[in-house]
Amino acid sequence: MKLQGLSILGQHRAKPSGKPTAAMNPATGAALEPDYFWATGSDVEQAAQLADRAFVEFRRWPAQRRAGLLRRIAELIEANATAIQERANLETALPLGRLQGETGRTCGQLRLFASLIEDGWWLDARIDHADANRKPLPKPDVRSLLAPLGPVVVFSSSNFPLAFSVAGGDTASALAAGCPVIVKPHQGHLGTSELVGLIVQQAAGECGAPEGIFSVLFGPGREIGTALVKHPLIKAVGFTGSRAGGRALMDAAAARPEPIPVYAEMGSINPVFLLSNVLQQKAEELAAGMHGSVTLGVGQFCTNPGLAFVESGAAAAAFSKKLETLMGSTPPGTMLTADLCSAYRAGVEKFSRAAGVRRAASVDAGAGKAQAGAALFVTDAAAFLGNHSLMEEVFGPSTLVVECASREQMLAAARRLEGQLTATIHGTPEDLAANGELVELLTQKAGRLVFNGFPTGVEVCHAMTHGGPYPATSDGRSTSVGTRAIERFARPVCYQNFPDAALPDELKEANPLGIWRLVDGKPGCH
Amino acid sequence: MKLQGLSILGQHRAKPSGKPTAAMNPATGAALEPDYFWATGSDVEQAAQLADRAFVEFRRWPAQRRAGLLRRIAELIEANATAIQERANLETALPLGRLQGETGRTCGQLRLFASLIEDGWWLDARIDHADANRKPLPKPDVRSLLAPLGPVVVFSSSNFPLAFSVAGGDTASALAAGCPVIVKPHQGHLGTSELVGLIVQQAAGECGAPEGIFSVLFGPGREIGTALVKHPLIKAVGFTGSRAGGRALMDAAAARPEPIPVYAEMGSINPVFLLSNVLQQKAEELAAGMHGSVTLGVGQFCTNPGLAFVESGAAAAAFSKKLETLMGSTPPGTMLTADLCSAYRAGVEKFSRAAGVRRAASVDAGAGKAQAGAALFVTDAAAFLGNHSLMEEVFGPSTLVVECASREQMLAAARRLEGQLTATIHGTPEDLAANGELVELLTQKAGRLVFNGFPTGVEVCHAMTHGGPYPATSDGRSTSVGTRAIERFARPVCYQNFPDAALPDELKEANPLGIWRLVDGKPGCH
Repeated sequence: MKLQGLSILGQHRAKPSGKPTAAMNPATGAALEPDYFWATGSDVEQAAQLADRAFVEFRRWPAQRRAGLLRRIAELIEANATAIQERANLETALPLGRLQGETGRTCGQLRLFASLIEDGWWLDARIDHADANRKPLPKPDVRSLLAPLGPVVVFSSSNFPLAFSVAGGDTASALAAGCPVIVKPHQGHLGTSELVGLIVQQAAGECGAPEGIFSVLFGPGREIGTALVKHPLIKAVGFTGSRAGGRALMDAAAARPEPIPVYAEMGSINPVFLLSNVLQQKAEELAAGMHGSVTLGVGQFCTNPGLAFVESGAAAAAFSKKLETLMGSTPPGTMLTADLCSAYRAGVEKFSRAAGVRRAASVDAGAGKAQAGAALFVTDAAAFLGNHSLMEEVFGPSTLVVECASREQMLAAARRLEGQLTATIHGTPEDLAANGELVELLTQKAGRLVFNGFPTGVEVCHAMTHGGPYPATSDGRSTSVGTRAIERFARPVCYQNFPDAALPDELKEANPLGIWRLVDGKPGCH
Repeated sequence: MKLQGLSILGQHRAKPSGKPTAAMNPATGAALEPDYFWATGSDVEQAAQLADRAFVEFRRWPAQRRAGLLRRIAELIEANATAIQERANLETALPLGRLQGETGRTCGQLRLFASLIEDGWWLDARIDHADANRKPLPKPDVRSLLAPLGPVVVFSSSNFPLAFSVAGGDTASALAAGCPVIVKPHQGHLGTSELVGLIVQQAAGECGAPEGIFSVLFGPGREIGTALVKHPLIKAVGFTGSRAGGRALMDAAAARPEPIPVYAEMGSINPVFLLSNVLQQKAEELAAGMHGSVTLGVGQFCTNPGLAFVESGAAAAAFSKKLETLMGSTPPGTMLTADLCSAYRAGVEKFSRAAGVRRAASVDAGAGKAQAGAALFVTDAAAFLGNHSLMEEVFGPSTLVVECASREQMLAAARRLEGQLTATIHGTPEDLAANGELVELLTQKAGRLVFNGFPTGVEVCHAMTHGGPYPATSDGRSTSVGTRAIERFARPVCYQNFPDAALPDELKEANPLGIWRLVDGKPGCH
């Protein structure tokens, strides 16, 4: 597959237009071949029209056929894995080992959604039978199931160039639901996006999909992205990125004549609470775990723990001291883009200047524009509570330890937290029993509570929630990881008194697909 | 229960403040005792604070205890049914028979949600077991279930003074989910709202609920309503009413520092498609059915069919002629309020002046300010397609018949429709088979498709969808009728590697509540 630097419009390519932009190698600062042409307003229009027309047929595809498409995408990614990983390595500076793991995750996600839609229980099919003899009025036959929303725009993330990019979780779940997808790739990995985009295009062609179930439009989020979100044929948006970027899309979508849902995963600071007994038992081990989680992948995870709460004392001091040593001796790393690194440096600078905050460790990153050194800050709860900006995410290998004078002060600090993707508690069983109020509070603040672990590493499974109250995500009722992600792109459609032959197979009386359904209030495979 | 005209703040009453407003009898135009004092900004603050504090305890109530509260509300409504119905009859002009039916529906809804939360499957509890031996990384134990969002504001409807008012579907589903509720009652039935509000207050007290799980704030939507929606402690909004009112709340909620979901059911025109074979078989019978549905309850249903499509010809002419006769001989009726009636008259006037539209029947309503006469309009598809304002809802006993020159023209008109609560098709099996494209299209336009029936009468059951793409509702992924309504007020919360004792009962390994769960991808009661 030869890269051309052009957007993908269904089974075609966009024409070059305007001045092209170079793809960059963040490790060297050098440009990478080829240059990329941004999509035009007319490309946006064409992609939206194609997607809308394709939806008419695609929404009616049997689940098995959509599953076949998802599996074919996975196969083609695997067949081209080396080329994809090498390009991604050049564009993102993520090591090949990590990119191999991410390839596995990406293909695993595609196959998980393929199995999910074949199983069919996610459709929430429901049947309430008629009762002609009911008084005062006969009861009608009412049946419903989840149906796809329509064309979806996916803004891919910077930090998962495969698993949350062109054929990542948002795309997989939207296609699985029966929605056409238009991807606006992140500018940090243009070539990787084109490679994977061509694979999806090929798979769609091989599977006989109507043209337009998939397009890729390169360009700046502010222009191409906003035009896509405002387009009347677009029915939902998936996004992974910054709070400012996500909120701008939320506002644009809410201001449309027909508002549409935006699922923006905007990251969070993922607080870690180290309770007193466990801290006394293994302060240094916890410091090592914290260090590993904070610096993993140069700190570029949405679930990176940017905050640790400890109760002041000898154990807390031992924890901080060990963490200082580890953070201070972390080799600098290359971030995904120079822009992200420059934002990271500004964040570290802001924390360094904050009143009552001690810069406990800082690594000199050298001259490279994308090189980031780890940073550790320590403060007390009073200073933390007095400075709201200390609750802002610093995307990169930095964290802040907050020393609390008492359990009550820790609880007070927790109360002030904004919505989070995750909240983590380290404790003994006694700690947990003594901190019931904290657990309850964190249940209200976060989408996922982690016990005696660290928040980085998001398991792709049925029970996962990777989402949380605003501002962690735009919509805390949703998750972007795990099988529940498919529900974002569907709505219930109800059929009243329809003849059996005219019903979707999933709702036919005989249950020809053998799926799980709720019949007259009873769940079962009937 | 003596009416005092004062808002309800938890277990207390608000103090009188400002100039009171009279409750009105729409049939006579006379004021009803007592006058009502509007809630103040400080009442809003107090209700929100009480609800937030109550949520801490209420969210942890076992489902059975919440179910007990819902059932006690139903019992107390039944015990006071006569007083409630008599007051509602005076305030809304709805006949006692209808109000008796609505009482039954209201109590049925409360009991349905009580059973639902006892059954527990709605929680979507999911368990993915750990696998310590998985490579390259061990698999954690991940469990999740739906948890309540927090305090909910409910704006009650004008047209269901019981079933979609103070203790109606929104309140029942929010309380069932574990969310405190603050109701902003409709001004059309103030006394009914106070009576039912006092019942819920009493039930909450008897059941030992923390003060603040329920409040009622009287006042104008523009002021008290907007203040509630903007309050930072409010986490979701339910609304039934006009498109303008609903959109204003949507915009206010989207502009909050922390945007929150608004579930606004804003009504629609509920198109009815009368296909050619069935129309030839029973034009007059269909006209009678249409007439019954249009004029039921003086046309004051969200699902009132405001539009009928027919293919021109002898059968269509017979249908229109019969409908003319029936509509023209319908006695005038009293609408819920003089304001609604004045909006109805303006709508009828607008249709009467529209180019290419014939006023086929109109009933003189006499002098009463809330008296409405039925109206029938007939036009052709070309005129309909040329005038977008003919797609606007006229709330009341009016409908528009659109004569189409062909099946293609009917399809073209259907394509132009906005989002609808319902779409109805009358046809023979042959009609249905020949109009597959129409059915598919309507699936995308509406939340509920009705076959060979009429859309008024919304069955309260598991499979019901009373919602649809915007502008029928703010959020087509939701329903305000049926058990799925509870999902509006919940979000998934995930527990990773939690000790069994610290998990909610619904997620404990032994399944002590015996609820349906998804375990390692398999649905079942395990």
